[in-house]
Amino acid sequence: MSLNLEYYDWLIVEDGFHPEKNREMESIFSLGNGKMGQRGNFEEAYSGDSLQGSYIAGVYYPDKTRVGWWKNGYPDYFAKVINAINWIGIDILIDGEKLDLAKCEIIDFRRTLNMQEGNLERKFSVKLPNGNIVSVQSIRFLSIVDTSAGAIKYSIKAENFEGEISLIPYLDLDVKNEDANYNEVFWEEEHQEISDETAMILGKTKKLDFRVCSAMHSEIYKNGSQQEIPAENIKKPKYVATTYKVLLKQNEELSLYKYVINNSSLDHPLSDIKKNTSSQLKYVVKKGFEQMLREHKEAWAAKWRESDIKIEGDTAAQQGIRFNIFHLYQTYTGEDERLNIGPKGFTGEKYGGSTYWDTEAYALPFYMSTAGKEVARNLLLYRYRHLGKAIENAEKLGFKNGAALYPMVTMNGEECHNEWEITFEEIHRNGAIAYAIFNYIRHTGDTGYMADFGLEVLIGISRFWSQRISYSGDKQKYVMLGVTGPNEYENNVNNNWYTNTIAVWTLEYTLQNLKSLKKNHPEKYTALIEKLHFNPEKETSRWEDIIQNMYFPWSPEFKVFLQQDGYLDKEDVTVKDLDPDERPLNQHWSWDRILRSPFIKQADVLQGIYFFEDKYDTETIKRHFRFYESRTVHESSLSACVHAILAARINNMNLSYELYLRTSRLDLDDYNREVKEGLHITSMAGTWMTIVEGFGGMRVKNGMLSFYPQIPEKWVSYSFNVRFRGNLLNILVNEHIIITNKTGDKIKVLVFDKAREIEKESGISIHISSMNPAG
Amino acid sequence: MSLNLEYYDWLIVEDGFHPEKNREMESIFSLGNGKMGQRGNFEEAYSGDSLQGSYIAGVYYPDKTRVGWWKNGYPDYFAKVINAINWIGIDILIDGEKLDLAKCEIIDFRRTLNMQEGNLERKFSVKLPNGNIVSVQSIRFLSIVDTSAGAIKYSIKAENFEGEISLIPYLDLDVKNEDANYNEVFWEEEHQEISDETAMILGKTKKLDFRVCSAMHSEIYKNGSQQEIPAENIKKPKYVATTYKVLLKQNEELSLYKYVINNSSLDHPLSDIKKNTSSQLKYVVKKGFEQMLREHKEAWAAKWRESDIKIEGDTAAQQGIRFNIFHLYQTYTGEDERLNIGPKGFTGEKYGGSTYWDTEAYALPFYMSTAGKEVARNLLLYRYRHLGKAIENAEKLGFKNGAALYPMVTMNGEECHNEWEITFEEIHRNGAIAYAIFNYIRHTGDTGYMADFGLEVLIGISRFWSQRISYSGDKQKYVMLGVTGPNEYENNVNNNWYTNTIAVWTLEYTLQNLKSLKKNHPEKYTALIEKLHFNPEKETSRWEDIIQNMYFPWSPEFKVFLQQDGYLDKEDVTVKDLDPDERPLNQHWSWDRILRSPFIKQADVLQGIYFFEDKYDTETIKRHFRFYESRTVHESSLSACVHAILAARINNMNLSYELYLRTSRLDLDDYNREVKEGLHITSMAGTWMTIVEGFGGMRVKNGMLSFYPQIPEKWVSYSFNVRFRGNLLNILVNEHIIITNKTGDKIKVLVFDKAREIEKESGISIHISSMNPAG
Repeated sequence: MSLNLEYYDWLIVEDGFHPEKNREMESIFSLGNGKMGQRGNFEEAYSGDSLQGSYIAGVYYPDKTRVGWWKNGYPDYFAKVINAINWIGIDILIDGEKLDLAKCEIIDFRRTLNMQEGNLERKFSVKLPNGNIVSVQSIRFLSIVDTSAGAIKYSIKAENFEGEISLIPYLDLDVKNEDANYNEVFWEEEHQEISDETAMILGKTKKLDFRVCSAMHSEIYKNGSQQEIPAENIKKPKYVATTYKVLLKQNEELSLYKYVINNSSLDHPLSDIKKNTSSQLKYVVKKGFEQMLREHKEAWAAKWRESDIKIEGDTAAQQGIRFNIFHLYQTYTGEDERLNIGPKGFTGEKYGGSTYWDTEAYALPFYMSTAGKEVARNLLLYRYRHLGKAIENAEKLGFKNGAALYPMVTMNGEECHNEWEITFEEIHRNGAIAYAIFNYIRHTGDTGYMADFGLEVLIGISRFWSQRISYSGDKQKYVMLGVTGPNEYENNVNNNWYTNTIAVWTLEYTLQNLKSLKKNHPEKYTALIEKLHFNPEKETSRWEDIIQNMYFPWSPEFKVFLQQDGYLDKEDVTVKDLDPDERPLNQHWSWDRILRSPFIKQADVLQGIYFFEDKYDTETIKRHFRFYESRTVHESSLSACVHAILAARINNMNLSYELYLRTSRLDLDDYNREVKEGLHITSMAGTWMTIVEGFGGMRVKNGMLSFYPQIPEKWVSYSFNVRFRGNLLNILVNEHIIITNKTGDKIKVLVFDKAREIEKESGISIHISSMNPAG
Repeated sequence: MSLNLEYYDWLIVEDGFHPEKNREMESIFSLGNGKMGQRGNFEEAYSGDSLQGSYIAGVYYPDKTRVGWWKNGYPDYFAKVINAINWIGIDILIDGEKLDLAKCEIIDFRRTLNMQEGNLERKFSVKLPNGNIVSVQSIRFLSIVDTSAGAIKYSIKAENFEGEISLIPYLDLDVKNEDANYNEVFWEEEHQEISDETAMILGKTKKLDFRVCSAMHSEIYKNGSQQEIPAENIKKPKYVATTYKVLLKQNEELSLYKYVINNSSLDHPLSDIKKNTSSQLKYVVKKGFEQMLREHKEAWAAKWRESDIKIEGDTAAQQGIRFNIFHLYQTYTGEDERLNIGPKGFTGEKYGGSTYWDTEAYALPFYMSTAGKEVARNLLLYRYRHLGKAIENAEKLGFKNGAALYPMVTMNGEECHNEWEITFEEIHRNGAIAYAIFNYIRHTGDTGYMADFGLEVLIGISRFWSQRISYSGDKQKYVMLGVTGPNEYENNVNNNWYTNTIAVWTLEYTLQNLKSLKKNHPEKYTALIEKLHFNPEKETSRWEDIIQNMYFPWSPEFKVFLQQDGYLDKEDVTVKDLDPDERPLNQHWSWDRILRSPFIKQADVLQGIYFFEDKYDTETIKRHFRFYESRTVHESSLSACVHAILAARINNMNLSYELYLRTSRLDLDDYNREVKEGLHITSMAGTWMTIVEGFGGMRVKNGMLSFYPQIPEKWVSYSFNVRFRGNLLNILVNEHIIITNKTGDKIKVLVFDKAREIEKESGISIHISSMNPAG
């Protein structure tokens, strides 16, 4: 609770100014619209501690790699979405003195994120060093209707004086990344212009030649009436501004409307980018702030209608889940298959806005269920488009014949990460990409995707596994040596059970789909194997052999699959034996100590149990959960959700709820003391999964949605929506589960494994308290 | 043979100028005297490719660490002996045109390293762009008598013109390291002065405040007579110079004698450093160049008398071994216990002049046998002085109670390395430091060292092993998890046999010495255990338990100790199965591929077999050698020597000689294409070991020197000297082994395991060809 934010259903409120927590608040109060994002920085000057952050989707920089010791195969650069033009800036001078909250006496201060309507508001009163007191109210948003546009209304009132106010809206490209390996400046200016009407800057990244064209237009109102004020333009390198000077009497209020368009060369040909930016600016200015805000609010309302989760009886939880859903939609809207979901979204520099396996393992289910098929499909197509690069990546590591290794971290399909134990060895990511295809088709029923795109990716990945797996003469089994599993607190281990499992599953799934394609679409099959130079006999016979003879580490004593070879050589201690002062381990223990300890960062064997739950009976799941959860320190933001879902699966709702709490308000309560670096966007999807798959017990079985609902003791009810194939369902859980078929035809669902039909636009209600929910 | 150097017994000669190999040649032609070192850079200006290198022993810089991803426990800096003042520089202007070999037509050029006399000579004739032809002869040396002094005689002759020659000797502190993590300049100037007599610069390192005070004095001769020439002084920041202008007629010769003193604050209090430097300069100037050179030559002759290895019948081998011995003595003379032996000595920036386990495992035997007890003892005391830092280092990693982990790389006892798999896990280095104590006492008989210094180090190391080893409930044995063995082509393995072996040996050896100290010197014993808060019952009983119950991986199938758990899961291939185009692997394979392959970088199990040879019969040694050598790619310069010694041990002289050749001319023939970065100083000691321990079969057994001599087919004879306790022996091997007791009393030695007495100043001769040398 280190941020002390109050509980509201729809708002996040910082009451009083907390300069020592300003970076944290800037992360929390970030806005985004899928195309761009903006940390909760102030419009006016601020000389206190702050991380300026303005990010344009897909505009990244290949920052030259920094390593201690070079290894063959390391990438040359780390791609990062970079801090871009400061477009929110408005300098304020009051009788010549700059308004700067770090230098004023704060009378009151309130920053509010309105998640329902998608805007950020600030209200504050301050006394300047010269004794003048002003009240300020600002509201801004990044439109999800006009997705190039941001708009700000900035109002200032003279409380105790009469004096000259200078309003100086500006565009400033003279920005840096804090996270720059060699302190490079990433931006060059290609063009700037300014007239009374508009100011514009066209920036270019020093590498890759991305362009971002930004233009602004400002209007001044006094006491509600628009003013014609002579503007004084300022031009400096990478900077354009306009100064408006107004004499304000006591209690008069001045308002500045600042309209901005940011366009990148991803969306506009270079020849048109300036022209398009100008005309879009004209368009939004003409539409006007209030109308833009109205449309934006309505668009958010529509999003919420389909994706909201309502929780009765627990405002903290309600706020938490909405905060998560809100940021997920601010980060990714699914309209552009070139974009993806960085672990920090648009809320900070860390992890550089790049794509990790988080997308497939954690984020996909959320978007698939709430935003629907096309959005999920775009997430898959992102990887399909990168298949060529994944093959190149595998070739760099010595693989051949179209074997594909997807990168651990990427922007354009090339690997960016440069720790060998991750880059070269954390190859289970490849399995998650295969699994996402399965998961997508299972949920959406879009079998056509397999023939057109999916199988090509699966063959690339299967070829990789087939070459990466080797034969142990000693074990007389196939083995996979030298890997890092999802539990990154082990490096370079042999036979990580999860990786072995998902590799063999990939081979099985690929074979099965090859057969079915050959049978159902022989012409597509022929075209595909020709395109890929696929040798069905030779390649599949090795796959079959691996499937039959793969080694999976197993403990007869504990009757559990072992995380890896030798896991039982570790000390026999569990998390409860740890000194609380030494946690989190990754801040207290040296790396070698972590590595040789039995402690687990995040779900590893249990990730496999979660993915392939159908294969294991409840007793097996219980045994594995007890064994591994007791050794898991949950030091990844992605850990709690999988455990929470499994805890619910084995009927341990108390633990499930406890784990849920860790993810749901992870950022709002800054559990890990790292919110200042940005929010944990991908883990937010895990929170959604915990409610839907954990408490709701939702699965897809035999082509049907299936529910095993439970409810945390503290809650009165919760409800969520799910898109499933042609339908949109609402699921409300209290003592009953009430499923409403909101759109689409009659649908059959499973509740406690019993099939129930729900008519069009109607619902069913089943009492749950008497049931034994989890087998 | 990429450097194409001709074969000479005592000389290294570059005939003709090879600008494309200039960096390589600069390494080869390095000079040093233990106190300072100087790459073979030119005195006159050179605008071609060059790595300027002037190094002052012990003067290092803590260069801020550069890592890709920070891990807890990483050191903050990498200490490196840095490029220091350019003191050799002499700019030459000929009729106003600067002499620069990159811009002249080369008529002839010859650079000669005289290893017998310890100097570097250059002779060349060039035509300048202005048509003037000059002949130059320069000779320089770093005195091993006046160890602060360097001297240069630089002569220039006008071949085809009459004109004005400007000679500009200078001191230049405006130098940089190529290897600087953040392009920092490491030096500041504290003081400079110049008069007709002398010029001086006092430099200070920006961190740690090391001072280096350098002073120069020059004299000009024309056609052999000293000239009184008005000197024109030049002062710039970090630079002082004197210009002498002389009119030279055709065929006249001008000579400049440049005397330099370099003193560091390691040897001089700050209050006296300038004064001492001035007076030393006066002293050597008074002594004069020729006398200095004479004394220097005599001192080298004395060194050679005791350390030379003579090889008849193989000039390449002769030159190779002398090159190695020469550079070993240029790097380290053993007079200062604060100094040690960097893997590149004073010949380049790489590995930063820091200390590695190379010293204990490879360099100690050479110095112990050739330079004697005091020098070897100083190498041990270096680590004794660092014990406190080693304990701190272990504490950083979570160890307690005086456990000591010596650093992988260090200058002052603090860890500098920052790859977790090395820094935190390559802990066998601790064992080598313990083993060196044993090796030293075995050879020198200096048992007093154990009581006064050795045991304290052994207890620190034993405490570390005791805490680092854990108990496996699964194996019901003690195990050591998460280590990297000497074979760095495996990282983070469990139960590396070598590390387990040397750890248990350390515990045994420490216990044995504790017992004997308690018995023989009870008062010292009591003082020691009090000083160390040593709990004999509790601590030693755990040690005993570990000794009794340690796990050592073993293959019943191959009857070999396994390098680590799971080694037999690797592909069953050997080095002969490798595509030669893919070697060296470290330049062709990605790191993960190397790690999961069975290929071995350097002796690992065999390092243990080598160290503890007495424990294993010849059949066991043979079996292990065949198994592991066939999987070893020898991609460390330290690999071949251990294998060569073991090959000789099992009577495989052909392979032994083949491996010997790889080390002996490693740098002269630039096998690994990296000589430009500097020479492989520590591996040079391995070459010496190969001849003495490999071919000569020298061991210490029961307090006696023991020999099992063999001779490579190609050789007529070889001979070497060994200091052993009170004696200096010469061993000559041809068809006989002829051992001469040069100094010291009557001595008993073993030859082919038979004891022989050798009287004072006399010798024995035994025919070897009929013997079966290796058991």
